[in-house]
Amino acid sequence: MDEPQLRRLLEAVADGALDTAAALEQLRRWPITQVGGFAHIDTHRDLRTGFPEVVYCAGKTDDQIVAIVQAMLERQRCVLATRMSAATAARLSAEGLPGEYLATARCWVVPAAEPRSAGLVAVVCAGTSDLPVAEEAAVTASTMGSRVERIYDVGVAGLHRLLGYAEALQQAHAVVVVAGMEGALPSVVGGLVACPVIAVPTSVGYGAHFGGLAPLLAMLNSCASGVSVVNIDNGFGGGYCAHQINWQVAQAKGAA
Amino acid sequence: MDEPQLRRLLEAVADGALDTAAALEQLRRWPITQVGGFAHIDTHRDLRTGFPEVVYCAGKTDDQIVAIVQAMLERQRCVLATRMSAATAARLSAEGLPGEYLATARCWVVPAAEPRSAGLVAVVCAGTSDLPVAEEAAVTASTMGSRVERIYDVGVAGLHRLLGYAEALQQAHAVVVVAGMEGALPSVVGGLVACPVIAVPTSVGYGAHFGGLAPLLAMLNSCASGVSVVNIDNGFGGGYCAHQINWQVAQAKGAA
Amino acid sequence: MDEPQLRRLLEAVADGALDTAAALEQLRRWPITQVGGFAHIDTHRDLRTGFPEVVYCAGKTDDQIVAIVQAMLERQRCVLATRMSAATAARLSAEGLPGEYLATARCWVVPAAEPRSAGLVAVVCAGTSDLPVAEEAAVTASTMGSRVERIYDVGVAGLHRLLGYAEALQQAHAVVVVAGMEGALPSVVGGLVACPVIAVPTSVGYGAHFGGLAPLLAMLNSCASGVSVVNIDNGFGGGYCAHQINWQVAQAKGAA
Amino acid sequence: MDEPQLRRLLEAVADGALDTAAALEQLRRWPITQVGGFAHIDTHRDLRTGFPEVVYCAGKTDDQIVAIVQAMLERQRCVLATRMSAATAARLSAEGLPGEYLATARCWVVPAAEPRSAGLVAVVCAGTSDLPVAEEAAVTASTMGSRVERIYDVGVAGLHRLLGYAEALQQAHAVVVVAGMEGALPSVVGGLVACPVIAVPTSVGYGAHFGGLAPLLAMLNSCASGVSVVNIDNGFGGGYCAHQINWQVAQAKGAA
Amino acid sequence: MDEPQLRRLLEAVADGALDTAAALEQLRRWPITQVGGFAHIDTHRDLRTGFPEVVYCAGKTDDQIVAIVQAMLERQRCVLATRMSAATAARLSAEGLPGEYLATARCWVVPAAEPRSAGLVAVVCAGTSDLPVAEEAAVTASTMGSRVERIYDVGVAGLHRLLGYAEALQQAHAVVVVAGMEGALPSVVGGLVACPVIAVPTSVGYGAHFGGLAPLLAMLNSCASGVSVVNIDNGFGGGYCAHQINWQVAQAKGAA
Amino acid sequence: MDEPQLRRLLEAVADGALDTAAALEQLRRWPITQVGGFAHIDTHRDLRTGFPEVVYCAGKTDDQIVAIVQAMLERQRCVLATRMSAATAARLSAEGLPGEYLATARCWVVPAAEPRSAGLVAVVCAGTSDLPVAEEAAVTASTMGSRVERIYDVGVAGLHRLLGYAEALQQAHAVVVVAGMEGALPSVVGGLVACPVIAVPTSVGYGAHFGGLAPLLAMLNSCASGVSVVNIDNGFGGGYCAHQINWQVAQAKGAA
Amino acid sequence: MDEPQLRRLLEAVADGALDTAAALEQLRRWPITQVGGFAHIDTHRDLRTGFPEVVYCAGKTDDQIVAIVQAMLERQRCVLATRMSAATAARLSAEGLPGEYLATARCWVVPAAEPRSAGLVAVVCAGTSDLPVAEEAAVTASTMGSRVERIYDVGVAGLHRLLGYAEALQQAHAVVVVAGMEGALPSVVGGLVACPVIAVPTSVGYGAHFGGLAPLLAMLNSCASGVSVVNIDNGFGGGYCAHQINWQVAQAKGAA
Amino acid sequence: MDEPQLRRLLEAVADGALDTAAALEQLRRWPITQVGGFAHIDTHRDLRTGFPEVVYCAGKTDDQIVAIVQAMLERQRCVLATRMSAATAARLSAEGLPGEYLATARCWVVPAAEPRSAGLVAVVCAGTSDLPVAEEAAVTASTMGSRVERIYDVGVAGLHRLLGYAEALQQAHAVVVVAGMEGALPSVVGGLVACPVIAVPTSVGYGAHFGGLAPLLAMLNSCASGVSVVNIDNGFGGGYCAHQINWQVAQAKGAA
Repeated sequence: MDEPQLRRLLEAVADGALDTAAALEQLRRWPITQVGGFAHIDTHRDLRTGFPEVVYCAGKTDDQIVAIVQAMLERQRCVLATRMSAATAARLSAEGLPGEYLATARCWVVPAAEPRSAGLVAVVCAGTSDLPVAEEAAVTASTMGSRVERIYDVGVAGLHRLLGYAEALQQAHAVVVVAGMEGALPSVVGGLVACPVIAVPTSVGYGAHFGGLAPLLAMLNSCASGVSVVNIDNGFGGGYCAHQINWQVAQAKGAA
Repeated sequence: MDEPQLRRLLEAVADGALDTAAALEQLRRWPITQVGGFAHIDTHRDLRTGFPEVVYCAGKTDDQIVAIVQAMLERQRCVLATRMSAATAARLSAEGLPGEYLATARCWVVPAAEPRSAGLVAVVCAGTSDLPVAEEAAVTASTMGSRVERIYDVGVAGLHRLLGYAEALQQAHAVVVVAGMEGALPSVVGGLVACPVIAVPTSVGYGAHFGGLAPLLAMLNSCASGVSVVNIDNGFGGGYCAHQINWQVAQAKGAA
Repeated sequence: MDEPQLRRLLEAVADGALDTAAALEQLRRWPITQVGGFAHIDTHRDLRTGFPEVVYCAGKTDDQIVAIVQAMLERQRCVLATRMSAATAARLSAEGLPGEYLATARCWVVPAAEPRSAGLVAVVCAGTSDLPVAEEAAVTASTMGSRVERIYDVGVAGLHRLLGYAEALQQAHAVVVVAGMEGALPSVVGGLVACPVIAVPTSVGYGAHFGGLAPLLAMLNSCASGVSVVNIDNGFGGGYCAHQINWQVAQAKGAA
Repeated sequence: MDEPQLRRLLEAVADGALDTAAALEQLRRWPITQVGGFAHIDTHRDLRTGFPEVVYCAGKTDDQIVAIVQAMLERQRCVLATRMSAATAARLSAEGLPGEYLATARCWVVPAAEPRSAGLVAVVCAGTSDLPVAEEAAVTASTMGSRVERIYDVGVAGLHRLLGYAEALQQAHAVVVVAGMEGALPSVVGGLVACPVIAVPTSVGYGAHFGGLAPLLAMLNSCASGVSVVNIDNGFGGGYCAHQINWQVAQAKGAA
Repeated sequence: MDEPQLRRLLEAVADGALDTAAALEQLRRWPITQVGGFAHIDTHRDLRTGFPEVVYCAGKTDDQIVAIVQAMLERQRCVLATRMSAATAARLSAEGLPGEYLATARCWVVPAAEPRSAGLVAVVCAGTSDLPVAEEAAVTASTMGSRVERIYDVGVAGLHRLLGYAEALQQAHAVVVVAGMEGALPSVVGGLVACPVIAVPTSVGYGAHFGGLAPLLAMLNSCASGVSVVNIDNGFGGGYCAHQINWQVAQAKGAA
Repeated sequence: MDEPQLRRLLEAVADGALDTAAALEQLRRWPITQVGGFAHIDTHRDLRTGFPEVVYCAGKTDDQIVAIVQAMLERQRCVLATRMSAATAARLSAEGLPGEYLATARCWVVPAAEPRSAGLVAVVCAGTSDLPVAEEAAVTASTMGSRVERIYDVGVAGLHRLLGYAEALQQAHAVVVVAGMEGALPSVVGGLVACPVIAVPTSVGYGAHFGGLAPLLAMLNSCASGVSVVNIDNGFGGGYCAHQINWQVAQAKGAA
Repeated sequence: MDEPQLRRLLEAVADGALDTAAALEQLRRWPITQVGGFAHIDTHRDLRTGFPEVVYCAGKTDDQIVAIVQAMLERQRCVLATRMSAATAARLSAEGLPGEYLATARCWVVPAAEPRSAGLVAVVCAGTSDLPVAEEAAVTASTMGSRVERIYDVGVAGLHRLLGYAEALQQAHAVVVVAGMEGALPSVVGGLVACPVIAVPTSVGYGAHFGGLAPLLAMLNSCASGVSVVNIDNGFGGGYCAHQINWQVAQAKGAA
Repeated sequence: MDEPQLRRLLEAVADGALDTAAALEQLRRWPITQVGGFAHIDTHRDLRTGFPEVVYCAGKTDDQIVAIVQAMLERQRCVLATRMSAATAARLSAEGLPGEYLATARCWVVPAAEPRSAGLVAVVCAGTSDLPVAEEAAVTASTMGSRVERIYDVGVAGLHRLLGYAEALQQAHAVVVVAGMEGALPSVVGGLVACPVIAVPTSVGYGAHFGGLAPLLAMLNSCASGVSVVNIDNGFGGGYCAHQINWQVAQAKGAA
């Protein structure tokens, strides 16, 4: 709960417009929607952080996902559900819930009534096998309101593939770089641009790759400044961070 | 080398103002300053990424550091050298080099002639032992041109310490959160703000902390959206990313 | 074998009521029930530690589980079998064995004839995906004789969800905190209560989560005092420890 | 901040005894003491969790430790500082601060004016080399108000050493078991007692011990129920948890 | 090739009974049987190490296993094939190959025409889930010629189960101790007997067990002297080492 | 893009044969073939590194593989696709694409119209289970143009198996040594030959093998000089490096 | 306590020669000598396991070591103290304690009045840097009563060095093989001998050696049968196990 | 021992020129020089592998190094000793031994009487801090007989630094690439050249670098073909492999 809200509540108590028991109850329970004993939706999050709560589907039953999405549809301006299987998406369709399933990105999206699209986020990936993670990033950023440029399969073993896109990269306010294998791409991109690079390691590889550990460590040790990292295969996180950066700049420019 | 420069060079060749051998040589060697056989300063970096090359002192001899800083003083608008020991700083002073040594942050700073200071970066840390890393972040961001607010020793075992600073946090364009131990602080901060959080794990801890691995993993797995991570103890990286974000917003606002 | 029993046996030998060969045999074999060449049930455990032996079903064949449960039904006041698959539970039902299968908790429970229910244990979990582990903890503690309050899906990215339950938490004699992802919840709970917190990391997560390693390390490094940890996904262990604490206090209060 | 305090504050606002600006300020800053820009002492902790904040000295400068201990002496009923070097202790003595340095435990203790001593905690260790950790546990529990029984050098390669102390173990309300090497002792103790066992792995060992990882993993995988674990070498944590358990029971018995 | 054989060959060359080309060929190829381009059976091994080559079936196709077993049947006094699936065993039966499949141990055994059985090896395991590994050890040792005593499900949380078998343990020339979970059993057994203990960690466990790493590390760090360790789940290796020890002693006693 | 090409392009610009806009475009896009939005084939690679781009099939959909292979067939002198499943190979056949599927090696090969075969590469493996990796190496080297000698199942527990092949080993210009288990074979081979040894660890093993980590670490720590290592199970990489070495020598000899 | 002793005690109770209280006391305390509150010497161990307790000096203070050695001198037939620094040895000499310090092995030895020397143990090491560990093994085995043959610096990169010692190896009843680097030597030795091989990995190496992890894993995964492993740098453990094996055989032969 | 030598020996036996006892002795001991009981120099290695044995100084005493170097001076055409401290070098000089100490490379070199210098090896490093490892590689290759081109401080964050050296890289027969941090440089170099790349990870870095693990894993997972890897900081190994490759090509060219 942020400070202006707390101030209004205290003033209402001071005015006698609100008795202390009711104030207490509001302070304790207000910005939560409980769903079926197994979930507390944080309905305050959009105000507090700029975007509503997102459903991470892995480890949840179909019944739980249906109930949570239904509750969100009533309370949020848009819905994004990630790591959703095709089977679960079929179940949501069968239940008549609105929204579109994007198979490569494994996301269910119910766009806002007034979609935003401002400022540029670039999503770059090293190899064709990295596409599901890159698409999760791209779908997240565009659902949140960013314009997105996709630059795919431009790994470092053939540098000229990447260098041909330098112009596009330099127009972005944030770049998401998705790479498996040795994870070298963010260092090279980081040396080419002035905006922040969000590096997303993927689990694409084998052997001493250890499920993405190799590119994760490489990205954390990048010799290029301005590279920060999210979890292995976390395309959502990469897209989210890039949008946050882009959105602030786009808002500031818009106000200009 | 960015595209406008390449275009001008090609036009000079087309005009006969530049012969091909000379053009070839420029293309190969231009934006580098070689120092003593052991270093190539990337003197093109300021134009390309917005800030000159920074000296990471660990693993370099005092002689090498002196030579590199001297070369930079001639070619860069400011100098930042990180992970510098007090002994090396004494050597730089003895050599009569300009600049100031900030002991807690272990940084040597030669500020720009026209220092910038715009937009707010907040640097938050969990415990007193995290100060050296937090200060490295703060010094980096302020040397690069951001205003910095320091909020220290506000770990999660006493949440009210952090919650008292909510207003300051919400005015920042980017927040650097530095924490050792279990690294929980970025998740809590990430749930309170709308701007990006750059999490910096520290090696402060013992036993199953494994030199910072515990908070690093925690931060990579943060349940709060909008948290990205840099290497353990990498205060420089955290401050750099936060400044990049802040600077874009401040520039856009300034243009408004 | 505890001391009073040993004393009585020695006195019987001294009285000539027991010859030395028989005493020797009793000392060697008594408090064990051998089942089918593959198991030795420790039938002495209830007296020694306050609760009978529990069956951990993973890695055992259905035939072995049936035989062990049957043997326990004859010798123990109640039976708890954990990590039981639905298929095995179906087999037990088909064999006509008494008891109930709790699917989310994956437990088979044959309650004691005179069930106990005293003192409060709170079971808190961070996300909906942590429910199976949280339920294993809750079922264990309640089967053993504790009252249990469940507080689910109250992760740290929306702190107000947890803070609304402060009263319930402060009435418990022990709190089990179940969390995957970055495992930050026990630190926050540990800063709010005076009773011990038993932290249970879960394998809910992906990438640099390493099957629960991330929250395990976080919990072991908790900056809150009074937090101890059990194995990843070990809801049984968390519930057991919490009951042991609660039961001692409840007994002491009951004696008051 | 707990609920009764919040209720009184709200009532004061309702009564007009407190204006909203002052209430707001209290809500934001009250239970914190800031020290020298580098520390926020959580002076509310004793009320909230039953024991004041403890100083963990590792990674803090002597100046910081002196300032923090001085601030605590004015605000807390007792002071416990752990992981203090002999040199720092000499500095505290030279500053004329009250308190005693316990060298094996590496603790500085300023006992409460009215020391408590009730209920029994047993501290068991496997080998002579584990003494510093065992003593940290024992000093912590006794400073907090528990009676402590020390049972040292009773490792599992000679079981009869431990079995001779069965009576003492069975009188305790909680047992701290400290072990390095293979960390087998908590499993054996856990099979002998009905109260909770807090296992503390130590870094005593070499080679594939990996600084305490071997006993840590062993303890987390204990086949004995009722064993929970704290960080490697965390004698403080073990003693703290054991005291919390013991204290609740002792209080309940005292009230009987 | 051992020295007496080399001497005879050299003498034959000296005598002119063997020309140098033939000698060279014998030296290069003799004690090998090549099978189908994919295997070289070391037919010299029985003479050199006391037991013929054993087939490790994992990772081999059924066709390869059939061909190797057939080749061994012609050249070895007995055949032992480990880690064989039930499906492969059915294939061998269908091919009409002699031998018996022991399902729990996952071994195919063709006993020697003159089976040996001398000296005692004890195989001890901690839990019912460890049986497949324990049986692999027992079958290996008995196929090689040792008498084997099985002592199963005697883990350390109920010590009296193990202590009842002290007599049997003290008659063995070598003890194989198989344990998953925390792997404490070898330390306790090692403290009770004078003969060598071969510890076999198993992958039985979950969470921070890491597929057997926990008991492996525990066993390597055993505080009991005389404990050596083989790979996780390597019942074959444990049984082999124990037989080697037992056999030397039994041979020496037999010669008495 | 290499220097002669850049020189010709600059000369064309100087001659007016090429205007700057066209030159710019060539510099940016030329040596790339984009396929279906998901792949950029590096059609410049054969000129730059001596062999065309290879398709690594894992993680790509059948549709993507078909499209990439089709595009390569039009632009490359030969095609090698590794880690292809039998199902994908069947799909390629059904599409009427030329080429042969080598099942053990899991490779699809479209040989060059003028196949090369010069110089010797030896491929050695330790056990029958290592064959798929060894065959991937052998197929890679022979597709690239080396003669290949296969020496399989010659592990170190029966050294005479390997020593019989010393002559063949000494004729090779490079030796690929493939081994799982403890990975000792490259050290022994490295001590026998004067040419480079490329060691390929395999994931063949169990328990503390950790998916090939054991032989990987062993090979990196080889006491024999001249051993370098590629990723676990990377038969392709081993065969590629060996061919590169062999090819240079064979070319130099051919020129003699 | 073994069975014959328990039988005699029970008979004494039955005869009235011992009252139950005294018997109880004997059962609880007998075979232990307490030293200075910090150590319990297991004076029963020689009878139970064939060799008295050994002092592991690391982590003990000089005062503790002096007190323990003095107590052992009164109660044991010989004393072995391992991992003793030269400084501690000097202290023992200064205290006038009997015994000899072996510097390379870092052992203090007080031999038995009637030293034993029977049967052969071979101690083999791969490199000169492994000597301290190999000597610890050799000194342990010879102090316990084995004859020891040392074969040093015979690593696998020059196999003929080892093969020259085949005869000596084949006369041993047990071989200790000490190796750092890639740890391949035990596999080669294991393929040459019929007796058990005890492998001792050392921390000699760097980089991806990880303090001995590389040879430890290699040895656990040895393709040679009959290899068991002790902890990294645990020369004592290797020598102890080898002696136990040798001693049983030597005893049996002696009885012949 | 290679085959021609064995053939000559057998012929001498057949001719009666050598009796079998003498032949046996030659076969067992010949190509070894024993030094002081602690080392066996493999004096056969130069013939077998093309370069004499090299002294790795770490872990050896000064006395041992002096003795080994003296023995080598009598038997080898040149001497290379790596990882030598300045103190040891001073000792060698004081002993009057010939040779030069190269401080950055930490090598002692006694060059051959007829030094070789043919073919080009390029040694590339990413940063100034990697110099000691790069120099070890360069000194090794040049001592063995290669010409060496050093290209230092050309990391991937400023690609133009590297691209300026493309011509030199393309003239080499082998390239050693030394890099710490994220280890991306070998992938970029591997994409530019047709000869093999030997990648050497360094321990230069901090935090999640884990002593060189990060670049090691990156290099093993390189997306560029033709990259093989040696141990962390193993400049010697990198230089040795590169020389072996270069030497074969240079020899073949020389023969042309």
